[in-house]
Amino acid sequence: MAILYNDAAMADGPGGLHTEGQGEPAPRVTATYLIETPLAPEKAAEVLAGEQSSGTFVAVPGETAELKARFAARVEGVETLDWFEQPSLPSEKLAPGKYQQALVRVSWSVENFGFNLPVLVSTLQGNLYELRQFTGLKLMDIDFPAAYVAHFKGSKFGIEGSRALTGVYNRPLIGTIIKPSIGLTPEQTAEMVQTMGEAGIDFVKDDELLSSSANSPFEKRVEEVMNRINRLADKTGKKIMYAFNVSGETDEMLYRCETIVKAGGTCAMISLNSVGLSATRKVCETAPLAIHGHRNGWGMMTRHPLLGIDFPAYQKLWRLAGVDQIHVNGIANKFWESDDSVVRSIEACLRPMANGRTVLPVVSSGQWGGQAFETWRRTATVDLLYMAGGGIMAHPMGASAGVTALQQAWKAAVDGMQLNEAVKEYPEFAKSVEKFGKG
Amino acid sequence: MAILYNDAAMADGPGGLHTEGQGEPAPRVTATYLIETPLAPEKAAEVLAGEQSSGTFVAVPGETAELKARFAARVEGVETLDWFEQPSLPSEKLAPGKYQQALVRVSWSVENFGFNLPVLVSTLQGNLYELRQFTGLKLMDIDFPAAYVAHFKGSKFGIEGSRALTGVYNRPLIGTIIKPSIGLTPEQTAEMVQTMGEAGIDFVKDDELLSSSANSPFEKRVEEVMNRINRLADKTGKKIMYAFNVSGETDEMLYRCETIVKAGGTCAMISLNSVGLSATRKVCETAPLAIHGHRNGWGMMTRHPLLGIDFPAYQKLWRLAGVDQIHVNGIANKFWESDDSVVRSIEACLRPMANGRTVLPVVSSGQWGGQAFETWRRTATVDLLYMAGGGIMAHPMGASAGVTALQQAWKAAVDGMQLNEAVKEYPEFAKSVEKFGKG
Repeated sequence: MAILYNDAAMADGPGGLHTEGQGEPAPRVTATYLIETPLAPEKAAEVLAGEQSSGTFVAVPGETAELKARFAARVEGVETLDWFEQPSLPSEKLAPGKYQQALVRVSWSVENFGFNLPVLVSTLQGNLYELRQFTGLKLMDIDFPAAYVAHFKGSKFGIEGSRALTGVYNRPLIGTIIKPSIGLTPEQTAEMVQTMGEAGIDFVKDDELLSSSANSPFEKRVEEVMNRINRLADKTGKKIMYAFNVSGETDEMLYRCETIVKAGGTCAMISLNSVGLSATRKVCETAPLAIHGHRNGWGMMTRHPLLGIDFPAYQKLWRLAGVDQIHVNGIANKFWESDDSVVRSIEACLRPMANGRTVLPVVSSGQWGGQAFETWRRTATVDLLYMAGGGIMAHPMGASAGVTALQQAWKAAVDGMQLNEAVKEYPEFAKSVEKFGKG
Repeated sequence: MAILYNDAAMADGPGGLHTEGQGEPAPRVTATYLIETPLAPEKAAEVLAGEQSSGTFVAVPGETAELKARFAARVEGVETLDWFEQPSLPSEKLAPGKYQQALVRVSWSVENFGFNLPVLVSTLQGNLYELRQFTGLKLMDIDFPAAYVAHFKGSKFGIEGSRALTGVYNRPLIGTIIKPSIGLTPEQTAEMVQTMGEAGIDFVKDDELLSSSANSPFEKRVEEVMNRINRLADKTGKKIMYAFNVSGETDEMLYRCETIVKAGGTCAMISLNSVGLSATRKVCETAPLAIHGHRNGWGMMTRHPLLGIDFPAYQKLWRLAGVDQIHVNGIANKFWESDDSVVRSIEACLRPMANGRTVLPVVSSGQWGGQAFETWRRTATVDLLYMAGGGIMAHPMGASAGVTALQQAWKAAVDGMQLNEAVKEYPEFAKSVEKFGKG
């Protein structure tokens, strides 16, 4: 193990692990899956472990016991759950029968994939979803050895860095998304940023649908927006963090990050699933910017309870890649996700990883001040980037009052007030309750 | 439209579309979704179109009619299908009721995202999976305007290029995967390649689980394998195509491609879903190698009939990124997928795209010669890379006979023979029927 984490041993090939595995066995990465299967869960887990390490559908020459001991995946535990009459995932190939769910833990030696994130993902999330032995399979969590995590640069800014860049402490960062999502000119966008900045907003972001559109070229938007932000900062001492959506081809993203840095910006947004792990890691490790990780497309990977990946596992991968802020949806959101699930996601982001790097949970979707009370009650944290789009811009007294109302709501929540008490105390918040509180 | 595709207009920002939209309206990209909804399908489609263009949950200032006309997504058609008592995707937030399925077509102006693949994906596959208005949503296909596709470099080799690099014409390329997936040393791997090469194999690939492991560093494997391949080529005039798994961080992949090129190799493999779109496109556009696209992780995105993305849409995105070969599973495979679905996937790959670039369908998973007959019967094509792992290496007469048996099976199938006729004609194939034909 000492050899394994020796930098010299890594130097001869990026991501490689060129030890000979002498002495102590190498540390292991352990994945927890929720499975459903018509087989005995122990048997199904063994199929998964075989498929995802040394297995094929018949025994082949060269598959020695020594080789298996070193590189084979290992089933570490099986906790059986309920039986079901119907399979969660239909398949024409299923024999009739009953289906049992279980939590299974499977481990791999880090010698298999090294510090190569894509190969780690192919190991933990590759062909196993294809196996007909499963009628449900979801990756719930991943346990990494501390020394493994420590090897990654990880988030450069995270919670503390995002606070330092915005000068916001002891309360959530309050943010907004420019709406309409797409169609505004750079000048119109900059105008909105100005309005928000004067109202005391901490953070503004592009919508994920806008990167460089026909009437809002990226460079022009950066120029117009940063001109306003820099001027406001000169006047007030407070610099708004604007997450420009750099999502695109690899070189384009790096070039756009440079454009942001040169203009005095502090943040870039990446649509994680659309861009992918390799290019996101490259941007995170290269650009001296806080990286705002947007998870659009996430619903496809998690919306079925027995298919895909759960957020606690997902956010760990992106933290290793170096993302500083990641979306978690919000309490009483406009989407399908339950409050319980949102709370679990926030908790997952706030759990430390071994390299000491943190990630800031980004709360958004149909948010306004009203949800501050329940968000605070259930998470007891102010380490959030709390985002409202329409919830700010459509405030009856204007966008500026929208920002004020959000700040009021969070102050009231943390002060232990109830919503109806806050309404009496704070007129801007009261107006937002009138407008948004009926749903 | 003339301005839109003028290169000069694109020069000021990669991926940007900096026209002012004068004159003719810009061409549109149209997506077809299979949806399920408790609402009227027309209404649900409008929600999708709004969310994925100019919409937010309340009307906001700046959302003008002119802006909407230019940038709003448009519902192009709704074909209603059956009603269901139970929702395909459960949600705590559903009111009781019935659920109707429908095929809906939604279009976007290319002015929204330009030639930026990640932003295209965020538009077509982003937050829409989160919408509670849907109890099922799957992206089935994408129609791109010809001029849009023509802008992409796309696959450099495809079917014709893969044939030219291997010298194989008028029959499928026959390939194998090194098994066990992980654990062999570079010398052992090279030894297997030698055996396969002497048996006349056209193509060999790394397993997706192996890129650079503790006992098989990438560079060393390239060196050992290419030594054997080059020596065989000198002797026989036939160069085996070996797909080295370069999947990894961005720079690492480019460096590994260079290593392959320097050693005289012709192909690199990428785990598409694990690496992601941006870095894959970068490798495709940079490396003078055929890119073998492995779709591991694909099951997560498609296994539920009402969630994710269907293969016809998926393969188009990777063809735009520049992949030359892409996995399609195989007839009577070991996985969950039906033969009908595999046939549809092969057909999708063989349909031309407007830039004239082709992609070679890679048939694999539990394959041996036995499936050649049904594969030929249903697809009537030999434009395939037909892969067998255990099906070759575990042949009773040895790996060399395994290759021969596969070649025999394909010759027999194309000659119009039935399996039982081929057994009488070809002894190596007959032995493989004895071993693999019982399942």
